[in-house]
Amino acid sequence: MTDVVALLREALGERVDTSDPAVDAARADKSGHRAAGRPLAVVHAASVADVQTTMRIATATGTPVVTRGAGTGLAGGANTGAGEIALSVRGMDRVLEVRPDDLLAVVEPGILNADLGRTLAPYGLWWAPDPASREISTVGGNIATGAGGLLCAKYGVVRDAVLALDVVLADGRLISTGHRSVKGVTGYDLTALMIGSEGTLGVVVGATLKLRRLVPGETRTLTALFPDVRTAAAGAAAVTAAGIQPSIMELMDAVSLTAAHALLGLAPPTPGATQLTVQTDGAAAAHEQTEIADILVASGGAVRLAADDAEAAQLWAVRRAMHPAMETLGTALIEDVSVPRSALPAMFDEIARIEAAYGLTIPTVCHAGDGNLHPNFIFEGDEVPAEVWRAADDLFRAAIALGGTLTGEHGIGVLKSRWLADELGEDQWSLQRGIKSVFDPAGILNPGKVFSPQP
Amino acid sequence: MTDVVALLREALGERVDTSDPAVDAARADKSGHRAAGRPLAVVHAASVADVQTTMRIATATGTPVVTRGAGTGLAGGANTGAGEIALSVRGMDRVLEVRPDDLLAVVEPGILNADLGRTLAPYGLWWAPDPASREISTVGGNIATGAGGLLCAKYGVVRDAVLALDVVLADGRLISTGHRSVKGVTGYDLTALMIGSEGTLGVVVGATLKLRRLVPGETRTLTALFPDVRTAAAGAAAVTAAGIQPSIMELMDAVSLTAAHALLGLAPPTPGATQLTVQTDGAAAAHEQTEIADILVASGGAVRLAADDAEAAQLWAVRRAMHPAMETLGTALIEDVSVPRSALPAMFDEIARIEAAYGLTIPTVCHAGDGNLHPNFIFEGDEVPAEVWRAADDLFRAAIALGGTLTGEHGIGVLKSRWLADELGEDQWSLQRGIKSVFDPAGILNPGKVFSPQP
Ligand SMILES: Cc1cc2nc3c(=O)[nH]c(=O)nc-3n(C[C@H](O)[C@H](O)[C@H](O)COP(=O)(O)OP(=O)(O)OC[C@H]3O[C@@H](n4cnc5c(N)ncnc54)[C@H](O)[C@@H]3O)c2cc1C
Ligand SMILES: Cc1cc2nc3c(=O)[nH]c(=O)nc-3n(C[C@H](O)[C@H](O)[C@H](O)COP(=O)(O)OP(=O)(O)OC[C@H]3O[C@@H](n4cnc5c(N)ncnc54)[C@H](O)[C@@H]3O)c2cc1C
Repeated sequence: MTDVVALLREALGERVDTSDPAVDAARADKSGHRAAGRPLAVVHAASVADVQTTMRIATATGTPVVTRGAGTGLAGGANTGAGEIALSVRGMDRVLEVRPDDLLAVVEPGILNADLGRTLAPYGLWWAPDPASREISTVGGNIATGAGGLLCAKYGVVRDAVLALDVVLADGRLISTGHRSVKGVTGYDLTALMIGSEGTLGVVVGATLKLRRLVPGETRTLTALFPDVRTAAAGAAAVTAAGIQPSIMELMDAVSLTAAHALLGLAPPTPGATQLTVQTDGAAAAHEQTEIADILVASGGAVRLAADDAEAAQLWAVRRAMHPAMETLGTALIEDVSVPRSALPAMFDEIARIEAAYGLTIPTVCHAGDGNLHPNFIFEGDEVPAEVWRAADDLFRAAIALGGTLTGEHGIGVLKSRWLADELGEDQWSLQRGIKSVFDPAGILNPGKVFSPQP
Repeated sequence: MTDVVALLREALGERVDTSDPAVDAARADKSGHRAAGRPLAVVHAASVADVQTTMRIATATGTPVVTRGAGTGLAGGANTGAGEIALSVRGMDRVLEVRPDDLLAVVEPGILNADLGRTLAPYGLWWAPDPASREISTVGGNIATGAGGLLCAKYGVVRDAVLALDVVLADGRLISTGHRSVKGVTGYDLTALMIGSEGTLGVVVGATLKLRRLVPGETRTLTALFPDVRTAAAGAAAVTAAGIQPSIMELMDAVSLTAAHALLGLAPPTPGATQLTVQTDGAAAAHEQTEIADILVASGGAVRLAADDAEAAQLWAVRRAMHPAMETLGTALIEDVSVPRSALPAMFDEIARIEAAYGLTIPTVCHAGDGNLHPNFIFEGDEVPAEVWRAADDLFRAAIALGGTLTGEHGIGVLKSRWLADELGEDQWSLQRGIKSVFDPAGILNPGKVFSPQP
C-alpha cells in the first residue's frame, strides 16, 4: 500500500496532522454520531493550492477525502473514518473583498458565519443566512449544507445568497462557477448544484456571496402562549396566511419550553403551554407587530409584547437555550423535517401520533415562519435505538406525505442516506448518483455520505 | 428507416401535426434565426401522458425532440430542424392549484406568464418573474430559460421563484424534483439544475411556483435625461450603491430612445440624450422616489417626476416600444450581456469602443437595476454578417472580463453555444456535458443547443 500520509507530508509538511486529538476530533460532528475507525490524517489547508495538492494525492492513491468546515453539522456529513483523509478548510478564513456598491463579498470557506457578519457590519451589510450555529459554523459548511436560519423565512436561505463559487474537483482541478453579476444563465447552474452537496462533488475553496444592506429601523418582539401545540401551529399558519412576513417566528412546544426555562433558571412556564416568539423588523415593525398580535389573540394565544430590546433579548435567549436544554433530558437525535406552512398543524398531529405509538417524548421546536420543524428524539446512551429510528422513519414519511421533505436544512449526511430514495424516488436517485459520478468518477469525495450503496 | 411520424400518429392521433404552416413555424423562435430543414412533425401535447408517449417513441427510434413553449426565445433554443420532432406543450395551460396560505401555485407549463398573472391577481398574489414578453411567453419557457424581467432586480428571477418541477425524461419516465415546503436540502438541487437548461435535460410538464403577495400601495415613476450614456450608467450605479432598491430601473441610450419616440410619434428627445426610467413601489414609494431623484440630479441628470399613473404609463410605453423600434432600424441581433452593477459605466465604454472598432451602431437598453444590458446589433438582411459576430464576440469577452456573463436572461440556445466554453472554461464545460449525458445518454433532447460539438 502506498503511504498516503508520507506523500501528504512531503508535499504539505506541517499542515498534515496525525496527532490523536486532531484525528479523533475529525471522526465526529455535532450529530452525536461518530465514524468507525481512525482517519489517516487531518490536512489543515491554508490555501487553494493546499487543497489541490491534497486532492491530487488522493486521486493518485485512491484515498477518500472528507472535507470539513467547523464540524458543527447535524447529519454526520463531516465524520471521517478509517482510511480517509479529513481535509479541513477552517484555516482558510479570509474575507478577500467587500463591495458595497455591488452588494457582494468574496470570502474563503473557513470563515465563521458570525465573523463574516462582524466584518460586514461596518459597511452596513450582512449575509442573510443565520443558522443558530452561526458563531461556530463556517460559511463553506453553510454552503455545503445549504443552511437555513432563523431569519430565512423573510431573508432567504444559503441558496438565495451565493453568486459564484470556486471549487476544487476530485482530481485537483479548480473550476469557477457563476459570476459576479446578479443575473446570468450560461449553461447549467452548477453554483446551485454545489449548494447542499455536502462535500460529495468538490471542495468549496472560495465564494462570492450576495449581500443585503442592514435593515434600518427597530425590531419588535412578542410572545404568544397557547394551550397546546396544535393551536400554536395554527396561529403561526394564520400569520403566514394573512400575508404578514415576520422576520423570525419560532415555536417551542411544552417540553422544550419547560426544559429551556429550567436550564436558564426561569420560573416554569404554564404547564402544557406552547410558545410562539415572533420578531418583526424594518420600517413597519411596530405596525406588523400589532397585526400579528391580533391574529394570534384571535387564534387563542395569550400575547405579550416585549417592552424593550432587553426584554426581547431575554425572550430570544429562551429559544437559543434549546440545544443545551435538550441535552439535559438525555441524548437527542435532532430531526429536521419541513412541510408547507399550512400543514404545520397536521405535522404536529403526526408527531403526537408517533409519540403515542412508540412511547417516546419528542420535544419539538419549529421555524414556524417557513414550516421547518426540529423534533428531538430523546433517548439514553450513545447509540440511537432501533425503536427511535423506526419512529424517525415514520416521521419522515409523514412529512413527505404532507408535501414536505425529510431535511429542511441539515442535510442527508450519513444519518439519512437510507431515506433519500424514499423521497426522491429511484429514478431521481439514480440521476443524482449519475451526477455524482460525473464529478467524482473514482468515488473518493465523502464516500458513503448522502448516497448509501443502493436505494 | 422507421416511420416515426406513423408511430406518433398511431399513439397520439390528431395531436400530431405535419401541416406546412405548423411545421414551418416550429423552425424559428424570435431570435431571427431559423433551423435548416423541415421538422418531422409538431406534437401538440395535451397531457403529461402525451409527452411521455412522445419521448418513448423518440427514444425507441433515436429521434431528436425539441420542446417548445410559445417560441418567443431569443437564442434559437426552440428552433426545430430536419429529422426532429417539435414537442409543443403550449396546450397544457391549466392552473391546477392556487394556495394563498402557502404562497404557491401548481401549473402546467404552457400557460402564458401574463395569463397566470391574471389568474392570481384576484387572490392578491403574483409570480414575480415578468419578462417583457410575459403576454406571449410560457411559464415553462420562462423556467427552461431562467427568464428575468423588469421587476427582477427587486423581486427576483425565475430561479428564485420555483419550488418543485415535474419533468419527463428523455426515455419517457416522469420525475418530481423539489417539494411544496419552502425549505428542503434533500440531495442535489435538481430543480435549480432544470431552470435554464433550455430543453436539454428533460421536458418540464408541471411546476410548483413560489408566489408573492401583491405589493400594497402605489407606484411612482420618474425619468432622468443624461447628456451621454456613461453618465446615465454612473447615475444608475450610484442609486444601487446608495442602497435604494427601485422596483424597475431601465436605461435607454440615445439611438434607442430616438427610435422609440419616432415609432410612437412623440417629439424627438434631446439629441444624444440617454434616459433612465425608474419606478418605486410599496409603502416607501414616494420617499424612495425623492431619494433617487436627488441622487440622479447629483449625477448630472435632468429629472422629471410623472404626475400620475397615466403619465407613468406613457413613459413605460416608450421603454416597451424598444423591440418594435429596433425593427424600424434594420434586422437586430439582440444581445444580453450582464455585468456587476458597478461595472455598467465600463461596459458602456466597451460598447462605444466596439461600435468605433467595427463601424457599427449598437443601440442599447439596459436593466440598470441588475446590470443586464441588451445591445442590439443592427444590420441589413436575414443573415447575421460575420463582422457582427466578430463584434459580438468582442462584446462577450468584455462582459466576462468585467466579472459578468454572455447571457443574463436569454440563454445559450444555438446562437451562443460557440462561446459557452469561453465563459465556463473547458473543465466546467466538460462537467456540464457530463450532466447532459446522465439525463440524456442518447442525446435526443434538443441536440446541438447549448453545447456545440466541442468547446
Ligand atoms: C447548536 C447548533 C445549531 C444549529 N443550527 C442550525 C440552523 O439553524 N440551521 C442550519 O441549517 N444548520 C444548523 N446547524 C447545523 C450546522 O451548523 C450546519 O449544517 C452548518 O452549515 C455546518 O457548517 P460547518 O462549518 O460546521 O460544516 P461541517 O459540519 O464541517 O460540514 C458539514 C458538511 O459540509 C461539508 N463541507 C464543509 N465545508 C465544506 C467545503 N468548504 N467544501 C465542500 N464541502 C464542505 C462536509 O463534508 C459535510 O458534509 C446547527 C448545529 C448546531 C450544533
Ligand atoms: C419582445 C420580447 C421580449 C422579451 N423580453 C424578455 C425579458 O425581459 N426577459 C427574458 O428573460 N426573456 C425575454 N424574452 C425572451 C423569451 O420571451 C424568453 O426566453 C421566454 O422565457 C421564452 O419562453 P417561450 O415559452 O417562448 O419558450 P420557447 O421560445 O418556446 O423555448 C425557449 C427554450 O426553452 C425550452 N423549453 C420551452 N418550454 C419548455 C418546457 N416545458 N420544458 C423544457 N424545455 C422547454 C425550449 O426548448 C427552448 O430551448 C423576450 C422575447 C421577446 C420576443
